[in-house]
Amino acid sequence: MYYLGVDGGGSKTRATIINQAGDILGSAIAGPGNPIQDFETTLHSIVEAARLAIIDAKLPVETVSQLVVGAGLAGANVEHIREKMLAWRHPFAKLYVTSDLHTACIGAHAGGDGAVIITGTGSCGFVAVAQQSLELGGHGFPQGDKGSGAWLGLQGVSAALLDLDRLGPQTQLTEQILNHFQAHSAIDIVSQIAGKPAAIHARLAGLVLAAAKQRDPVAMAIVREGCEYINALANRLFNLNPPRFSMIGGLVEPLLPWLSDEIQQRLAPPLEQPEMGAYYFAKANFERNAAAR
Amino acid sequence: MYYLGVDGGGSKTRATIINQAGDILGSAIAGPGNPIQDFETTLHSIVEAARLAIIDAKLPVETVSQLVVGAGLAGANVEHIREKMLAWRHPFAKLYVTSDLHTACIGAHAGGDGAVIITGTGSCGFVAVAQQSLELGGHGFPQGDKGSGAWLGLQGVSAALLDLDRLGPQTQLTEQILNHFQAHSAIDIVSQIAGKPAAIHARLAGLVLAAAKQRDPVAMAIVREGCEYINALANRLFNLNPPRFSMIGGLVEPLLPWLSDEIQQRLAPPLEQPEMGAYYFAKANFERNAAAR
Repeated sequence: MYYLGVDGGGSKTRATIINQAGDILGSAIAGPGNPIQDFETTLHSIVEAARLAIIDAKLPVETVSQLVVGAGLAGANVEHIREKMLAWRHPFAKLYVTSDLHTACIGAHAGGDGAVIITGTGSCGFVAVAQQSLELGGHGFPQGDKGSGAWLGLQGVSAALLDLDRLGPQTQLTEQILNHFQAHSAIDIVSQIAGKPAAIHARLAGLVLAAAKQRDPVAMAIVREGCEYINALANRLFNLNPPRFSMIGGLVEPLLPWLSDEIQQRLAPPLEQPEMGAYYFAKANFERNAAAR
Repeated sequence: MYYLGVDGGGSKTRATIINQAGDILGSAIAGPGNPIQDFETTLHSIVEAARLAIIDAKLPVETVSQLVVGAGLAGANVEHIREKMLAWRHPFAKLYVTSDLHTACIGAHAGGDGAVIITGTGSCGFVAVAQQSLELGGHGFPQGDKGSGAWLGLQGVSAALLDLDRLGPQTQLTEQILNHFQAHSAIDIVSQIAGKPAAIHARLAGLVLAAAKQRDPVAMAIVREGCEYINALANRLFNLNPPRFSMIGGLVEPLLPWLSDEIQQRLAPPLEQPEMGAYYFAKANFERNAAAR
Protein backbone atom coordinates (compact mmCIF):
# COMPACT_ATOMS: atom_id res chain seq x y z
CA MET A 1 0.00 0.00 0.00
CA TYR A 2 1.21 3.48 -0.96
CA TYR A 3 -0.08 7.01 -0.56
CA LEU A 4 -0.53 9.41 -3.49
CA GLY A 5 -0.94 13.13 -2.84
CA VAL A 6 -2.58 15.00 -5.72
CA ASP A 7 -2.81 18.76 -6.24
CA GLY A 8 -5.17 19.68 -9.08
CA GLY A 9 -4.85 23.06 -10.75
CA GLY A 10 -6.17 24.91 -13.76
CA SER A 11 -3.10 24.23 -15.88
CA LYS A 12 -1.59 21.08 -14.32
CA THR A 13 -2.01 18.27 -11.81
CA ARG A 14 0.89 17.35 -9.51
CA ALA A 15 1.18 13.97 -7.77
CA THR A 16 3.66 12.52 -5.28
CA ILE A 17 3.85 8.87 -4.24
CA ILE A 18 4.90 8.09 -0.66
CA ASN A 19 5.35 4.79 1.14
CA GLN A 20 3.99 3.85 4.58
CA ALA A 21 7.28 4.90 6.18
CA GLY A 22 6.76 8.42 4.80
CA ASP A 23 9.50 8.25 2.14
CA ILE A 24 8.86 10.13 -1.12
CA LEU A 25 9.31 7.55 -3.92
CA GLY A 26 8.40 9.57 -6.99
CA SER A 27 6.40 12.41 -8.42
CA ALA A 28 4.80 13.50 -11.68
CA ILE A 29 2.89 16.25 -13.47
CA ALA A 30 -0.12 15.69 -15.72
CA GLY A 31 -2.67 17.93 -17.46
CA PRO A 32 -5.34 20.30 -16.11
CA GLY A 33 -7.04 19.27 -12.86
CA ASN A 34 -9.76 21.81 -12.12
CA PRO A 35 -13.12 19.95 -12.03
CA ILE A 36 -15.10 23.22 -12.18
CA GLN A 37 -13.49 24.00 -15.54
CA ASP A 38 -13.46 20.44 -16.91
CA PHE A 39 -14.58 17.46 -14.84
CA GLU A 40 -13.68 14.62 -17.26
CA THR A 41 -10.23 16.02 -17.99
CA THR A 42 -9.59 16.26 -14.25
CA LEU A 43 -10.35 12.56 -13.71
CA HIS A 44 -8.06 11.72 -16.63
CA SER A 45 -5.29 13.96 -15.26
CA ILE A 46 -5.48 12.36 -11.79
CA VAL A 47 -5.14 8.83 -13.24
CA GLU A 48 -2.37 9.96 -15.58
CA ALA A 49 -0.46 11.71 -12.77
CA ALA A 50 -0.77 8.53 -10.68
CA ARG A 51 0.51 6.37 -13.56
CA LEU A 52 3.49 8.68 -14.17
CA ALA A 53 4.32 8.90 -10.45
CA ILE A 54 4.32 5.06 -10.26
CA ILE A 55 6.73 4.96 -13.23
CA ASP A 56 8.90 7.66 -11.61
CA ALA A 57 8.99 5.53 -8.43
CA LYS A 58 9.99 2.46 -10.49
CA LEU A 59 7.03 0.52 -9.10
CA PRO A 60 4.93 -1.95 -11.14
CA VAL A 61 1.94 -0.48 -13.00
CA GLU A 62 -0.47 -2.61 -10.91
CA THR A 63 0.48 -0.41 -7.93
CA VAL A 64 -2.36 1.87 -9.02
CA SER A 65 -4.86 -0.40 -7.24
CA GLN A 66 -2.81 -0.19 -4.02
CA LEU A 67 -2.84 3.61 -3.87
CA VAL A 68 -4.57 5.50 -1.08
CA VAL A 69 -5.10 8.81 -2.84
CA GLY A 70 -5.70 12.26 -1.39
CA ALA A 71 -6.68 14.96 -3.85
CA GLY A 72 -7.01 18.69 -3.36
CA LEU A 73 -9.32 20.02 -6.05
CA ALA A 74 -11.00 23.35 -6.75
CA GLY A 75 -14.75 23.03 -6.32
CA ALA A 76 -14.50 19.91 -4.14
CA ASN A 77 -16.98 21.62 -1.78
CA VAL A 78 -19.46 22.39 -4.58
CA GLU A 79 -22.29 19.92 -4.14
CA HIS A 80 -22.74 18.66 -7.71
CA ILE A 81 -18.97 18.28 -8.17
CA ARG A 82 -18.63 16.50 -4.82
CA GLU A 83 -21.41 14.06 -5.82
CA LYS A 84 -19.83 13.33 -9.19
CA MET A 85 -16.42 12.75 -7.54
CA LEU A 86 -17.96 10.30 -5.03
CA ALA A 87 -19.68 8.44 -7.90
CA TRP A 88 -16.40 8.08 -9.83
CA ARG A 89 -15.35 4.42 -10.30
CA HIS A 90 -11.68 5.24 -9.82
CA PRO A 91 -8.91 2.63 -10.12
CA PHE A 92 -7.41 3.31 -6.66
CA ALA A 93 -7.69 1.44 -3.33
CA LYS A 94 -9.12 4.59 -1.72
CA LEU A 95 -9.78 8.19 -2.75
CA TYR A 96 -10.21 11.11 -0.36
CA VAL A 97 -11.09 14.46 -1.92
CA THR A 98 -11.06 17.91 -0.37
CA SER A 99 -10.63 21.48 -1.61
CA ASP A 100 -7.27 22.58 -3.03
CA LEU A 101 -7.25 25.33 -0.42
CA HIS A 102 -7.50 22.74 2.37
CA THR A 103 -4.58 20.68 1.05
CA ALA A 104 -2.53 23.87 0.49
CA CYS A 105 -3.14 24.70 4.16
CA ILE A 106 -2.20 21.23 5.40
CA GLY A 107 0.92 21.32 3.23
CA ALA A 108 1.95 24.78 4.44
CA HIS A 109 1.87 23.47 8.00
CA ALA A 110 3.39 20.04 7.19
CA GLY A 111 0.29 18.14 8.29
CA GLY A 112 -0.46 20.28 11.33
CA ASP A 113 -3.25 22.72 12.08
CA GLY A 114 -3.01 26.28 10.84
CA ALA A 115 -4.29 28.98 8.54
CA VAL A 116 -3.33 30.20 5.07
CA ILE A 117 -4.14 33.16 2.88
CA ILE A 118 -3.49 32.86 -0.84
CA THR A 119 -2.87 36.07 -2.81
CA GLY A 120 -1.98 35.46 -6.41
CA THR A 121 -4.28 35.95 -9.39
CA GLY A 122 -7.12 35.39 -6.87
CA SER A 123 -7.40 35.65 -3.09
CA CYS A 124 -8.83 33.36 -0.42
CA GLY A 125 -8.26 32.11 3.10
CA PHE A 126 -8.52 28.83 4.97
CA VAL A 127 -8.12 27.76 8.58
CA ALA A 128 -8.23 24.24 10.06
CA VAL A 129 -8.00 23.76 13.82
CA ALA A 130 -8.92 20.46 15.47
CA GLN A 131 -12.28 19.52 13.91
CA GLN A 132 -13.12 23.07 12.85
CA SER A 133 -12.38 24.56 9.48
CA LEU A 134 -13.40 27.68 7.60
CA GLU A 135 -12.95 28.73 3.97
CA LEU A 136 -13.33 32.40 3.02
CA GLY A 137 -13.20 34.37 -0.22
CA GLY A 138 -12.10 32.79 -3.46
CA HIS A 139 -15.28 34.01 -5.15
CA GLY A 140 -13.46 34.81 -8.35
CA PHE A 141 -13.13 37.62 -10.86
CA PRO A 142 -14.60 40.24 -11.08
CA GLN A 143 -17.13 39.76 -8.25
CA GLY A 144 -14.75 38.69 -5.48
CA ASP A 145 -11.08 38.16 -4.55
CA LYS A 146 -10.36 41.66 -3.31
CA GLY A 147 -6.67 42.35 -2.85
CA SER A 148 -5.75 39.76 -5.49
CA GLY A 149 -3.70 40.43 -8.60
CA ALA A 150 -6.75 40.40 -10.88
CA TRP A 151 -8.65 42.74 -8.53
CA LEU A 152 -5.72 45.19 -8.30
CA GLY A 153 -5.36 45.16 -12.08
CA LEU A 154 -9.07 45.78 -12.67
CA GLN A 155 -9.11 48.67 -10.19
CA GLY A 156 -6.05 50.13 -11.91
CA VAL A 157 -7.70 49.98 -15.35
CA SER A 158 -10.92 51.51 -13.99
CA ALA A 159 -8.98 54.36 -12.37
CA ALA A 160 -7.05 55.05 -15.59
CA LEU A 161 -10.28 55.11 -17.64
CA LEU A 162 -11.86 57.58 -15.18
CA ASP A 163 -8.75 59.75 -15.33
CA LEU A 164 -8.72 59.72 -19.15
CA ASP A 165 -12.32 60.98 -19.12
CA ARG A 166 -11.35 63.53 -16.42
CA LEU A 167 -14.07 61.98 -14.27
CA GLY A 168 -11.66 60.72 -11.64
CA PRO A 169 -8.45 61.92 -9.96
CA GLN A 170 -5.20 62.12 -11.92
CA THR A 171 -2.90 59.15 -11.42
CA GLN A 172 0.40 57.94 -12.83
CA LEU A 173 -1.40 54.64 -13.48
CA THR A 174 -2.97 56.22 -16.55
CA GLU A 175 0.31 56.71 -18.39
CA GLN A 176 1.65 53.36 -17.23
CA ILE A 177 -1.45 51.46 -18.31
CA LEU A 178 -1.47 53.29 -21.68
CA ASN A 179 2.19 52.25 -22.08
CA HIS A 180 1.48 48.67 -21.01
CA PHE A 181 -1.10 48.31 -23.80
CA GLN A 182 0.83 50.59 -26.22
CA ALA A 183 -2.47 52.48 -26.25
CA HIS A 184 -3.24 56.12 -27.02
CA SER A 185 -6.80 56.37 -25.70
CA ALA A 186 -9.36 54.83 -23.36
CA ILE A 187 -10.89 52.96 -26.28
CA ASP A 188 -7.48 51.42 -27.11
CA ILE A 189 -7.21 50.10 -23.55
CA VAL A 190 -10.78 48.82 -23.50
CA SER A 191 -10.42 46.99 -26.81
CA GLN A 192 -7.48 45.04 -25.33
CA ILE A 193 -8.80 44.31 -21.82
CA ALA A 194 -12.59 43.92 -22.25
CA GLY A 195 -13.75 40.37 -21.60
CA LYS A 196 -10.26 39.16 -20.73
CA PRO A 197 -9.84 36.63 -17.90
CA ALA A 198 -8.48 37.23 -14.40
CA ALA A 199 -4.91 36.25 -15.34
CA ILE A 200 -4.69 39.05 -17.94
CA HIS A 201 -5.90 41.62 -15.42
CA ALA A 202 -3.44 40.25 -12.84
CA ARG A 203 -0.56 41.23 -15.15
CA LEU A 204 -1.36 44.87 -14.29
CA ALA A 205 -1.08 44.32 -10.52
CA GLY A 206 2.65 45.04 -10.58
CA LEU A 207 1.99 48.52 -12.06
CA VAL A 208 -0.51 49.31 -9.32
CA LEU A 209 1.81 48.07 -6.56
CA ALA A 210 4.77 50.00 -8.01
CA ALA A 211 2.71 53.21 -8.27
CA ALA A 212 1.52 52.75 -4.67
CA LYS A 213 5.14 52.34 -3.55
CA GLN A 214 5.87 55.67 -5.28
CA ARG A 215 3.03 57.22 -3.23
CA ASP A 216 0.58 57.75 -6.08
CA PRO A 217 -2.60 58.52 -4.09
CA VAL A 218 -4.97 56.61 -6.40
CA ALA A 219 -2.76 53.50 -6.43
CA MET A 220 -2.29 53.74 -2.66
CA ALA A 221 -6.06 53.89 -2.13
CA ILE A 222 -6.52 50.77 -4.30
CA VAL A 223 -3.81 48.80 -2.48
CA ARG A 224 -5.15 49.93 0.91
CA GLU A 225 -8.70 48.86 0.07
CA GLY A 226 -7.43 45.45 -1.06
CA CYS A 227 -5.33 45.08 2.07
CA GLU A 228 -8.19 46.07 4.36
CA TYR A 229 -10.00 43.07 2.94
CA ILE A 230 -7.00 40.77 3.43
CA ASN A 231 -6.66 42.07 7.00
CA ALA A 232 -10.34 41.35 7.71
CA LEU A 233 -9.94 37.88 6.16
CA ALA A 234 -6.93 37.23 8.42
CA ASN A 235 -8.84 38.42 11.50
CA ARG A 236 -11.62 35.92 10.85
CA LEU A 237 -9.04 33.13 10.44
CA PHE A 238 -7.16 34.21 13.59
CA ASN A 239 -10.42 34.03 15.59
CA LEU A 240 -10.04 30.24 15.48
CA ASN A 241 -6.56 30.54 17.05
CA PRO A 242 -4.56 28.67 14.40
CA PRO A 243 -1.16 27.65 15.81
CA ARG A 244 0.55 28.61 12.56
CA PHE A 245 -0.14 31.07 9.68
CA SER A 246 1.31 31.26 6.18
CA MET A 247 0.68 33.21 3.02
CA ILE A 248 1.10 31.71 -0.45
CA GLY A 249 1.19 33.32 -3.89
CA GLY A 250 2.97 35.81 -6.07
CA LEU A 251 1.58 38.91 -4.32
CA VAL A 252 2.62 38.04 -0.76
CA GLU A 253 5.92 39.88 -0.90
CA PRO A 254 4.70 43.17 -2.48
CA LEU A 255 1.50 43.27 -0.36
CA LEU A 256 3.18 42.48 2.95
CA PRO A 257 4.29 46.05 3.86
CA TRP A 258 0.66 47.19 3.46
CA LEU A 259 -0.83 44.46 5.66
CA SER A 260 -1.62 44.60 9.38
CA ASP A 261 1.02 44.28 12.08
CA GLU A 262 -0.65 41.12 13.31
CA ILE A 263 -0.29 39.46 9.88
CA GLN A 264 3.35 40.51 9.66
CA GLN A 265 4.09 39.22 13.17
CA ARG A 266 2.30 35.88 12.79
CA LEU A 267 3.54 35.10 9.27
CA ALA A 268 5.55 31.87 8.97
CA PRO A 269 6.87 30.35 5.74
CA PRO A 270 4.88 27.57 4.09
CA LEU A 271 6.68 24.28 4.90
CA GLU A 272 5.56 21.91 2.15
CA GLN A 273 3.71 21.88 -1.16
CA PRO A 274 -0.06 21.29 -1.60
CA GLU A 275 0.47 17.74 -2.95
CA MET A 276 2.16 16.91 0.37
CA GLY A 277 -0.89 18.39 2.09
CA ALA A 278 -3.01 16.02 0.02
CA TYR A 279 -0.81 13.13 1.18
CA TYR A 280 -1.23 14.12 4.86
CA PHE A 281 -4.98 14.41 4.28
CA ALA A 282 -5.16 10.91 2.74
CA LYS A 283 -3.04 9.42 5.52
CA ALA A 284 -5.12 11.00 8.31
CA ASN A 285 -8.38 9.85 6.76
CA PHE A 286 -7.11 6.34 6.05
CA GLU A 287 -5.75 5.86 9.56
CA ARG A 288 -8.95 7.25 11.08
CA ASN A 289 -11.03 4.81 9.01
CA ALA A 290 -8.72 1.92 9.93
CA ALA A 291 -8.98 2.81 13.63
CA ALA A 292 -12.78 2.95 13.35
CA ARG A 293 -12.97 -0.60 11.99
CA MET B 1 -33.11 60.05 -53.74
CA TYR B 2 -34.11 58.90 -50.24
CA TYR B 3 -32.55 58.99 -46.80
CA LEU B 4 -32.10 55.90 -44.63
CA GLY B 5 -31.41 56.25 -40.91
CA VAL B 6 -29.78 53.17 -39.36
CA ASP B 7 -29.33 52.38 -35.67
CA GLY B 8 -27.06 49.39 -35.10
CA GLY B 9 -27.25 47.49 -31.82
CA GLY B 10 -25.95 44.30 -30.26
CA SER B 11 -29.16 42.39 -30.90
CA LYS B 12 -30.81 44.22 -33.81
CA THR B 13 -30.44 46.90 -36.47
CA ARG B 14 -33.28 49.39 -37.04
CA ALA B 15 -33.70 51.37 -40.25
CA THR B 16 -36.15 54.07 -41.35
CA ILE B 17 -36.53 55.38 -44.91
CA ILE B 18 -37.43 59.04 -45.37
CA ASN B 19 -38.03 61.10 -48.51
CA GLN B 20 -36.57 64.51 -49.31
CA ALA B 21 -39.69 66.19 -47.92
CA GLY B 22 -38.98 64.53 -44.55
CA ASP B 23 -41.86 62.04 -44.69
CA ILE B 24 -41.27 58.62 -43.10
CA LEU B 25 -42.03 56.04 -45.80
CA GLY B 26 -41.17 52.79 -44.08
CA SER B 27 -39.05 51.09 -41.47
CA ALA B 28 -37.54 47.69 -40.71
CA ILE B 29 -35.56 45.62 -38.23
CA ALA B 30 -32.71 43.27 -39.14
CA GLY B 31 -30.09 41.26 -37.23
CA PRO B 32 -27.21 42.33 -34.96
CA GLY B 33 -25.42 45.55 -35.91
CA ASN B 34 -22.49 45.99 -33.52
CA PRO B 35 -19.27 46.06 -35.60
CA ILE B 36 -17.10 45.58 -32.49
CA GLN B 37 -18.81 42.25 -31.82
CA ASP B 38 -19.13 41.13 -35.46
CA PHE B 39 -18.12 43.35 -38.35
CA GLU B 40 -19.31 41.18 -41.26
CA THR B 41 -22.71 40.51 -39.68
CA THR B 42 -23.15 44.24 -39.15
CA LEU B 43 -22.62 45.01 -42.86
CA HIS B 44 -25.09 42.27 -43.73
CA SER B 45 -27.65 43.62 -41.22
CA ILE B 46 -27.37 47.17 -42.59
CA VAL B 47 -28.02 45.98 -46.17
CA GLU B 48 -30.83 43.70 -45.00
CA ALA B 49 -32.48 46.47 -42.95
CA ALA B 50 -32.28 48.76 -46.00
CA ARG B 51 -33.84 46.10 -48.23
CA LEU B 52 -36.69 45.47 -45.77
CA ALA B 53 -37.31 49.20 -45.25
CA ILE B 54 -37.55 49.65 -49.06
CA ILE B 55 -40.11 46.82 -49.17
CA ASP B 56 -42.01 48.35 -46.23
CA ALA B 57 -42.06 51.67 -48.13
CA LYS B 58 -43.37 49.85 -51.24
CA LEU B 59 -40.50 51.25 -53.29
CA PRO B 60 -38.69 49.31 -56.06
CA VAL B 61 -35.69 47.20 -54.92
CA GLU B 62 -33.35 49.33 -57.07
CA THR B 63 -33.98 52.19 -54.63
CA VAL B 64 -31.05 50.81 -52.61
CA SER B 65 -28.63 52.64 -54.94
CA GLN B 66 -30.51 55.92 -54.37
CA LEU B 67 -30.21 55.81 -50.59
CA VAL B 68 -28.22 58.38 -48.64
CA VAL B 69 -27.55 56.36 -45.50
CA GLY B 70 -26.64 57.54 -42.03
CA ALA B 71 -25.62 54.85 -39.57
CA GLY B 72 -25.01 55.05 -35.84
CA LEU B 73 -22.74 52.18 -34.86
CA ALA B 74 -20.90 51.19 -31.71
CA GLY B 75 -17.16 51.46 -32.25
CA ALA B 76 -17.49 53.85 -35.19
CA ASN B 77 -14.80 55.97 -33.51
CA VAL B 78 -12.43 52.99 -33.09
CA GLU B 79 -9.73 53.48 -35.70
CA HIS B 80 -9.55 49.98 -37.23
CA ILE B 81 -13.36 49.73 -37.40
CA ARG B 82 -13.63 53.21 -38.91
CA GLU B 83 -11.08 52.27 -41.59
CA LYS B 84 -12.88 49.03 -42.44
CA MET B 85 -16.22 50.86 -42.68
CA LEU B 86 -14.72 53.46 -45.04
CA ALA B 87 -13.29 50.66 -47.22
CA TRP B 88 -16.69 48.93 -47.47
CA ARG B 89 -18.00 48.75 -51.08
CA HIS B 90 -21.59 49.36 -49.97
CA PRO B 91 -24.55 49.37 -52.41
CA PHE B 92 -25.82 52.83 -51.39
CA ALA B 93 -25.50 56.27 -53.03
CA LYS B 94 -23.77 57.59 -49.91
CA LEU B 95 -22.92 56.28 -46.45
CA TYR B 96 -22.16 58.45 -43.42
CA VAL B 97 -21.15 56.61 -40.25
CA THR B 98 -20.85 57.91 -36.70
CA SER B 99 -21.14 56.44 -33.21
CA ASP B 100 -24.47 55.09 -31.99
CA LEU B 101 -24.19 57.51 -29.09
CA HIS B 102 -23.95 60.46 -31.48
CA THR B 103 -27.07 59.42 -33.42
CA ALA B 104 -28.93 58.75 -30.16
CA CYS B 105 -28.09 62.31 -29.10
CA ILE B 106 -29.17 63.84 -32.42
CA GLY B 107 -32.40 61.81 -32.28
CA ALA B 108 -33.14 62.82 -28.69
CA HIS B 109 -32.96 66.46 -29.74
CA ALA B 110 -34.73 66.00 -33.09
CA GLY B 111 -31.69 67.06 -35.08
CA GLY B 112 -30.64 69.92 -32.80
CA ASP B 113 -27.68 70.34 -30.49
CA GLY B 114 -27.76 68.85 -27.02
CA ALA B 115 -26.44 66.28 -24.60
CA VAL B 116 -27.53 62.78 -23.61
CA ILE B 117 -26.65 60.31 -20.90
CA ILE B 118 -27.51 56.67 -21.46
CA THR B 119 -28.06 54.48 -18.40
CA GLY B 120 -29.18 50.99 -19.26
CA THR B 121 -27.01 47.87 -19.17
CA GLY B 122 -24.08 50.27 -19.66
CA SER B 123 -23.59 53.99 -19.12
CA CYS B 124 -22.14 56.78 -21.25
CA GLY B 125 -22.59 60.42 -22.16
CA PHE B 126 -22.41 62.53 -25.29
CA VAL B 127 -22.68 66.21 -26.07
CA ALA B 128 -22.71 67.98 -29.44
CA VAL B 129 -22.78 71.77 -29.61
CA ALA B 130 -21.97 73.60 -32.84
CA GLN B 131 -18.76 71.97 -34.11
CA GLN B 132 -17.76 70.62 -30.70
CA SER B 133 -18.59 67.16 -29.42
CA LEU B 134 -17.47 64.99 -26.52
CA GLU B 135 -18.06 61.33 -25.73
CA LEU B 136 -17.53 60.07 -22.17
CA GLY B 137 -17.71 56.69 -20.47
CA GLY B 138 -19.07 53.64 -22.24
CA HIS B 139 -15.92 51.71 -21.37
CA GLY B 140 -17.86 48.53 -20.72
CA PHE B 141 -18.17 45.80 -18.13
CA PRO B 142 -16.59 45.29 -15.64
CA GLN B 143 -13.95 48.04 -16.00
CA GLY B 144 -16.23 51.01 -16.71
CA ASP B 145 -19.84 52.16 -16.96
CA LYS B 146 -20.32 53.14 -13.33
CA GLY B 147 -23.96 53.70 -12.39
CA SER B 148 -25.15 51.35 -15.15
CA GLY B 149 -27.32 48.28 -14.63
CA ALA B 150 -24.40 45.87 -15.01
CA TRP B 151 -22.27 47.92 -12.61
CA LEU B 152 -25.04 48.10 -10.00
CA GLY B 153 -25.61 44.35 -10.31
CA LEU B 154 -21.92 43.52 -9.95
CA GLN B 155 -21.59 45.74 -6.87
CA GLY B 156 -24.67 44.05 -5.40
CA VAL B 157 -23.22 40.56 -5.92
CA SER B 158 -19.86 41.61 -4.46
CA ALA B 159 -21.56 43.08 -1.38
CA ALA B 160 -23.63 39.92 -0.88
CA LEU B 161 -20.51 37.72 -1.15
CA LEU B 162 -18.68 39.87 1.43
CA ASP B 163 -21.69 39.70 3.74
CA LEU B 164 -21.94 35.90 3.39
CA ASP B 165 -18.27 35.64 4.46
CA ARG B 166 -18.98 38.16 7.24
CA LEU B 167 -16.22 40.30 5.77
CA GLY B 168 -18.55 43.15 4.86
CA PRO B 169 -21.59 44.87 6.37
CA GLN B 170 -24.92 43.05 6.57
CA THR B 171 -27.32 43.93 3.78
CA GLN B 172 -30.76 42.79 2.65
CA LEU B 173 -29.18 42.35 -0.78
CA THR B 174 -27.70 39.05 0.43
CA GLU B 175 -31.05 37.35 0.94
CA GLN B 176 -32.48 38.87 -2.22
CA ILE B 177 -29.55 37.81 -4.37
CA LEU B 178 -29.62 34.30 -2.84
CA ASN B 179 -33.34 34.16 -3.69
CA HIS B 180 -32.76 35.50 -7.20
CA PHE B 181 -30.37 32.62 -7.93
CA GLN B 182 -32.30 30.11 -5.77
CA ALA B 183 -28.92 29.76 -4.07
CA HIS B 184 -28.00 28.65 -0.55
CA SER B 185 -24.38 29.77 -0.39
CA ALA B 186 -21.77 32.09 -1.86
CA ILE B 187 -20.50 29.28 -4.06
CA ASP B 188 -24.03 28.74 -5.45
CA ILE B 189 -24.15 32.42 -6.47
CA VAL B 190 -20.66 32.39 -7.93
CA SER B 191 -21.30 29.28 -10.02
CA GLN B 192 -24.24 31.07 -11.67
CA ILE B 193 -22.76 34.54 -12.17
CA ALA B 194 -19.03 33.97 -12.80
CA GLY B 195 -18.00 34.85 -16.33
CA LYS B 196 -21.50 36.00 -17.28
CA PRO B 197 -21.90 39.05 -19.52
CA ALA B 198 -23.03 42.55 -18.56
CA ALA B 199 -26.69 41.88 -19.42
CA ILE B 200 -26.91 39.06 -16.84
CA HIS B 201 -25.44 41.30 -14.15
CA ALA B 202 -27.81 44.09 -15.16
CA ARG B 203 -30.76 41.87 -14.22
CA LEU B 204 -29.75 42.38 -10.58
CA ALA B 205 -29.85 46.19 -10.79
CA GLY B 206 -33.54 46.23 -9.87
CA LEU B 207 -32.79 44.45 -6.57
CA VAL B 208 -30.10 46.97 -5.69
CA LEU B 209 -32.33 49.95 -6.55
CA ALA B 210 -35.26 48.48 -4.59
CA ALA B 211 -33.06 47.85 -1.54
CA ALA B 212 -31.71 51.40 -1.76
CA LYS B 213 -35.26 52.74 -1.89
CA GLN B 214 -35.93 50.77 1.32
CA ARG B 215 -32.91 52.55 2.89
CA ASP B 216 -30.59 49.53 3.03
CA PRO B 217 -27.27 51.29 3.79
CA VAL B 218 -25.14 49.03 1.58
CA ALA B 219 -27.48 49.38 -1.40
CA MET B 220 -27.73 53.13 -0.82
CA ALA B 221 -23.93 53.45 -0.83
CA ILE B 222 -23.75 51.55 -4.14
CA VAL B 223 -26.45 53.67 -5.80
CA ARG B 224 -24.88 56.88 -4.46
CA GLU B 225 -21.43 55.95 -5.80
CA GLY B 226 -22.94 55.17 -9.20
CA CYS B 227 -24.89 58.43 -9.20
CA GLU B 228 -21.85 60.49 -8.19
CA TYR B 229 -20.27 59.24 -11.40
CA ILE B 230 -23.37 60.09 -13.47
CA ASN B 231 -23.44 63.54 -11.86
CA ALA B 232 -19.78 64.11 -12.74
CA LEU B 233 -20.44 62.89 -16.29
CA ALA B 234 -23.36 65.34 -16.58
CA ASN B 235 -21.23 68.21 -15.26
CA ARG B 236 -18.64 67.65 -17.97
CA LEU B 237 -21.38 67.58 -20.62
CA PHE B 238 -23.03 70.73 -19.17
CA ASN B 239 -19.68 72.57 -19.40
CA LEU B 240 -20.29 72.81 -23.16
CA ASN B 241 -23.67 74.51 -22.52
CA PRO B 242 -25.89 72.13 -24.47
CA PRO B 243 -29.26 73.79 -25.16
CA ARG B 244 -31.09 70.55 -24.36
CA PHE B 245 -30.39 67.46 -22.18
CA SER B 246 -32.02 64.02 -22.17
CA MET B 247 -31.44 60.67 -20.53
CA ILE B 248 -32.14 57.38 -22.29
CA GLY B 249 -32.32 53.82 -20.99
CA GLY B 250 -34.08 51.53 -18.57
CA LEU B 251 -32.43 52.94 -15.45
CA VAL B 252 -33.33 56.60 -15.96
CA GLU B 253 -36.54 56.49 -13.96
CA PRO B 254 -35.23 54.57 -10.89
CA LEU B 255 -31.93 56.51 -10.80
CA LEU B 256 -33.46 59.96 -11.21
CA PRO B 257 -34.33 60.61 -7.53
CA TRP B 258 -30.65 59.93 -6.65
CA LEU B 259 -29.20 62.27 -9.26
CA SER B 260 -28.18 65.92 -8.84
CA ASP B 261 -30.71 68.76 -8.77
CA GLU B 262 -29.14 70.19 -11.92
CA ILE B 263 -29.78 66.95 -13.84
CA GLN B 264 -33.36 66.82 -12.60
CA GLN B 265 -33.96 70.45 -13.57
CA ARG B 266 -32.37 70.27 -17.01
CA LEU B 267 -33.85 66.90 -17.98
CA ALA B 268 -36.06 66.96 -21.08
CA PRO B 269 -37.65 63.93 -22.74
CA PRO B 270 -35.90 62.41 -25.77
CA LEU B 271 -37.87 63.55 -28.83
CA GLU B 272 -37.05 60.92 -31.44
CA GLN B 273 -35.38 57.52 -31.83
CA PRO B 274 -31.68 56.96 -32.69
CA GLU B 275 -32.50 55.89 -36.26
CA MET B 276 -34.07 59.34 -36.75
CA GLY B 277 -30.85 60.81 -35.37
CA ALA B 278 -28.98 58.80 -38.02
CA TYR B 279 -31.31 60.28 -40.65
CA TYR B 280 -30.63 63.87 -39.45
CA PHE B 281 -26.91 63.06 -39.46
CA ALA B 282 -27.05 61.77 -43.06
CA LYS B 283 -29.12 64.75 -44.19
CA ALA B 284 -26.81 67.33 -42.59
CA ASN B 285 -23.71 65.70 -44.07
CA PHE B 286 -25.24 65.28 -47.51
CA GLU B 287 -26.46 68.90 -47.64
CA ARG B 288 -23.09 70.18 -46.38
CA ASN B 289 -21.29 68.17 -49.10
CA ALA B 290 -23.73 69.39 -51.74
CA ALA B 291 -23.23 73.00 -50.62
CA ALA B 292 -19.45 72.55 -50.78
CA ARG B 293 -19.57 71.41 -54.41
